[in-house]
Amino acid sequence: MKNPNLLKNLHGQRTRPIPIWIMRQAGRYLPEYQSVRGKTDFLSLCKTPELAAEVTIQPVDILGVDAAILFSDILIPLEPMGISLAFKEGEGPVLSPPVRASNDIKALRVHDSKETCQFVSETIKILRDELSEKAPLIGFSGAPFTLATYMIEGGSSRNFLFTKKMLFESPTLFNSLMKKISDVVIDYLNMQIEAGVEAVQLFDTWAGILSLKDYRDHVFPHVERIVEALSAHQRPIIYFAFNGGHLFDVIKHLKVNCMGVDWRTPLSIANELLGGNKVLQGNLDPLSLFMPEEKLKDRVKDIIEEGSHAQAHIFNLGHGVLPQTPPDKVKMLVDIVHELTG
Amino acid sequence: MKNPNLLKNLHGQRTRPIPIWIMRQAGRYLPEYQSVRGKTDFLSLCKTPELAAEVTIQPVDILGVDAAILFSDILIPLEPMGISLAFKEGEGPVLSPPVRASNDIKALRVHDSKETCQFVSETIKILRDELSEKAPLIGFSGAPFTLATYMIEGGSSRNFLFTKKMLFESPTLFNSLMKKISDVVIDYLNMQIEAGVEAVQLFDTWAGILSLKDYRDHVFPHVERIVEALSAHQRPIIYFAFNGGHLFDVIKHLKVNCMGVDWRTPLSIANELLGGNKVLQGNLDPLSLFMPEEKLKDRVKDIIEEGSHAQAHIFNLGHGVLPQTPPDKVKMLVDIVHELTG
Repeated sequence: MKNPNLLKNLHGQRTRPIPIWIMRQAGRYLPEYQSVRGKTDFLSLCKTPELAAEVTIQPVDILGVDAAILFSDILIPLEPMGISLAFKEGEGPVLSPPVRASNDIKALRVHDSKETCQFVSETIKILRDELSEKAPLIGFSGAPFTLATYMIEGGSSRNFLFTKKMLFESPTLFNSLMKKISDVVIDYLNMQIEAGVEAVQLFDTWAGILSLKDYRDHVFPHVERIVEALSAHQRPIIYFAFNGGHLFDVIKHLKVNCMGVDWRTPLSIANELLGGNKVLQGNLDPLSLFMPEEKLKDRVKDIIEEGSHAQAHIFNLGHGVLPQTPPDKVKMLVDIVHELTG
Repeated sequence: MKNPNLLKNLHGQRTRPIPIWIMRQAGRYLPEYQSVRGKTDFLSLCKTPELAAEVTIQPVDILGVDAAILFSDILIPLEPMGISLAFKEGEGPVLSPPVRASNDIKALRVHDSKETCQFVSETIKILRDELSEKAPLIGFSGAPFTLATYMIEGGSSRNFLFTKKMLFESPTLFNSLMKKISDVVIDYLNMQIEAGVEAVQLFDTWAGILSLKDYRDHVFPHVERIVEALSAHQRPIIYFAFNGGHLFDVIKHLKVNCMGVDWRTPLSIANELLGGNKVLQGNLDPLSLFMPEEKLKDRVKDIIEEGSHAQAHIFNLGHGVLPQTPPDKVKMLVDIVHELTG
């Protein structure tokens, strides 16, 4: 029978042990991933269903995590909008042309993911079969603001100069871009859910660069619209605004099943700031995986204790696992969480 | 007579108009700075008292800000500790060798800033004369954690892998480094105060990458020790932990005159989280300087209203002004603040 703990907790029902999965659990720190990745480049790996499915399952088999998350990249649905996408080894992604003017936004296509991202639904269908006796599958998308920053900057950024320039100079223009991206995100997640994912996570990696007011006025309404549009499916939704502790007073109004919390804010405080009765996911500092075993164990104990204040708790890191992390420490973390709460 | 508004507000006494200065106000966005900078490289500019003094005064004359801040770099006092320092155009600083092992820390020299950084005290002495009828002079130092990250990483960083590895694997080692850096910071700020600065700011640019617990246990005690060591001078101290909203519950206990706040958290909320009766400095998003005039004015009004909840308010940006910023907008900001509160 499939491991029920993730979905139970997403629906507010605590379990023993508590479930754990790890952001970027299918990734470069795993030699088994590297071996598949060695066959092709990163984008092709995302687009080859058999290989993407293989690396998605690896952490379930190797680490014993309680959920799989689709192996993909948040930038995937931007390519069919008319953006060329390149990943260079050791650098960030490069998106071109950057989207900065009214005409750039008009040129973007709101595509049909069923056709343009068929490789994603095929990956999910393979996984539905191969995971059926094992663990649930989480789908995901970048949240619209985070995707907008990559499109406007043309890649990663330090100061988000062009993003904020557009937001501050021409909020109407910015809003029209957010609307188009949100339409794509809704369609992309609908497609994933129809193909068979059992929960979805919205990654808002860059929301934290905004002030409370700018987030509330220009970003949150779009996130709300996405959540509303997906609600008919009744599939659990997780929203993760990285570095977003200062936004909790707005985020708490989002009607999702679960809130991701990064390592900065203790879960008991996050729980309070988010309204006092939320399912929380998090929040070990990924760098804690370099600690000696006993110290790691103490950290995990702290987080489990902090998480006990929430309605339910899904253990995770507070950000993606780093490529340099020793895989045996990741396995150790999974075992510690299961042992301490079993 | 010298403009008294900064110092009055630092001592908790509100003024009309409220004072404004701008982090990185002496910098690349100013053509007058570029013209001086064209004569030499960045490090030599920091180390040439006549030139450093000249660019320090520029924003007072050009913009009408209510304070000057010593033109220098937070990494300056690290060089005489035995670290080689290089600034390459368009890249971050490079520090070598990186400080990662016990022997690296042992080799660091706790130097006497009066001898090793004489160019700083000479710059301050020139400024004391030249600013005497104009504006007060703020001195500054990097806070020990921020300086430690540069030393351990060997420069800027994205994930702070080596810093957190040291902190998490060997807190005793990390603590010995923090202690040595703090000794240098105390001596460096003592020297600045004795040379004539009228207030000092501690920049903790990277404190926000830490969890509340790690900050409280491993960083805050060192900041407290520095503040305590400087207290005999009775010169106002400003502490600015960038991206540190989640740390306010610890930071509020620091016995400084004023807390810097970045743009993320509204000043009314920051004021509450910091204990309800603090002098606050901040907090316009530097990118707001790309807004049209009327919108910029609305933002400034909001911040002045938010700041009215604090004991006193020093207007500033929530981070340094960017090189791409139009200088006339910066001047406009200073005028708006003075007009709205005059």
